Amino acid sequence: MALKLYDLALADPDIRPSPFCWMVKFALLHKGLEFETAPVGFADKANYPDPEYGRVPVIIDGEETVKDSAMIMAWLDKAYPENPLVATDGEAAAAEFSRAWLFSSFFPAVSPMLVARIHALAADDDKPYFRASREERFGKTIEELAATTGQKEKVEASLQVLSAPLGRYRFLGGDAPNLCDYYVMGAFMWPRLSTSEDIYEAPQPVAAWIERMLDLFDGYARKAKRPS
Amino acid sequence: MALKLYDLALADPDIRPSPFCWMVKFALLHKGLEFETAPVGFADKANYPDPEYGRVPVIIDGEETVKDSAMIMAWLDKAYPENPLVATDGEAAAAEFSRAWLFSSFFPAVSPMLVARIHALAADDDKPYFRASREERFGKTIEELAATTGQKEKVEASLQVLSAPLGRYRFLGGDAPNLCDYYVMGAFMWPRLSTSEDIYEAPQPVAAWIERMLDLFDGYARKAKRPS
Repeated sequence: MALKLYDLALADPDIRPSPFCWMVKFALLHKGLEFETAPVGFADKANYPDPEYGRVPVIIDGEETVKDSAMIMAWLDKAYPENPLVATDGEAAAAEFSRAWLFSSFFPAVSPMLVARIHALAADDDKPYFRASREERFGKTIEELAATTGQKEKVEASLQVLSAPLGRYRFLGGDAPNLCDYYVMGAFMWPRLSTSEDIYEAPQPVAAWIERMLDLFDGYARKAKRPS
Repeated sequence: MALKLYDLALADPDIRPSPFCWMVKFALLHKGLEFETAPVGFADKANYPDPEYGRVPVIIDGEETVKDSAMIMAWLDKAYPENPLVATDGEAAAAEFSRAWLFSSFFPAVSPMLVARIHALAADDDKPYFRASREERFGKTIEELAATTGQKEKVEASLQVLSAPLGRYRFLGGDAPNLCDYYVMGAFMWPRLSTSEDIYEAPQPVAAWIERMLDLFDGYARKAKRPS
């Protein structure tokens, strides 16, 4: 039986913007593992593999259930040592750094631009839960978040740190992508699949890298359905 | 003849706070290369190996002159391939990332706290040049910079991204330090050697890593003279 990934879906079940699920999808593709995805809605906890945990990504591989994108990465490199996601401990530490950078810099900048858009695209049954949970997390109403100004500029400023490595190397992993690339591009899939608009402009080396990431694995990420 | 590093000095020639010179000192120690340092003042361009370039670090190794800390790193790994500063291209790209993070996050936060202190500690002959060049760079007087509030909190917020890798690994390079460690710790030597005060508090995993970095190479960085 193929490995199964529980993946967050909007009202259109083919639209799957979760950044953390995307990090895992990239990692599974990197490993060359066959997998199927099981779409779940934000509020649809009864259909989550662990309703009390109530979050995705979760993967089921035979008898094994693994939760949390960072835990899944570590588990994948143990369970499937071929095509490691990181080649050295130094690369593993760098992946932690890039993931922490997402949380301290990219996500805070981009979130206010996305929450109202995702709310609008969520299934009707998911909207009340989505609104309540996000308003609690951010301490603002969705409408207040959407009215925040200057976020585009903050996103674009945050992306500057990627220009240095990507101006010199094809990937954050060097010649070939590694876990750093999958963390960061996983995060970038979130705005890409939450709106039909391009809501920020990446510096040239970053924009070129995004195109390379979209091309990987036979264009898997490029083919992912965007809202119309 | 031992390799020579031109290193910035304050009025007390034993106080050498330049972060970029420190990055290079760590790299030379990592390589196990013998080197001597030549102190130069901020305005003392005539004594720089290339007065027109007018910056340090510069290293002289026999016939070879190499300028700019990032260029020196690349040159060192070519000229002295033993004990590489990075083990893979992925680690090299990660070092670029950590260096770019310093410029986008740590340096902007910490600089306003340091400029007036360094001015006070600079040699009298260097003070007018130091003031003019820094006031031009920041677009503010040294006194205005020193009066900026909230910088301690900004530094401490910036350091959060280091907690994730350093909570899991002994060094940014994993089990052992690599170029990422030397870039970041080189930058941290700047506040350490520009004031007798500890002007910010690092999160616990970062504070513990700083102690490990100070211990490296027989305590080389720990022994460096601080202002009294």
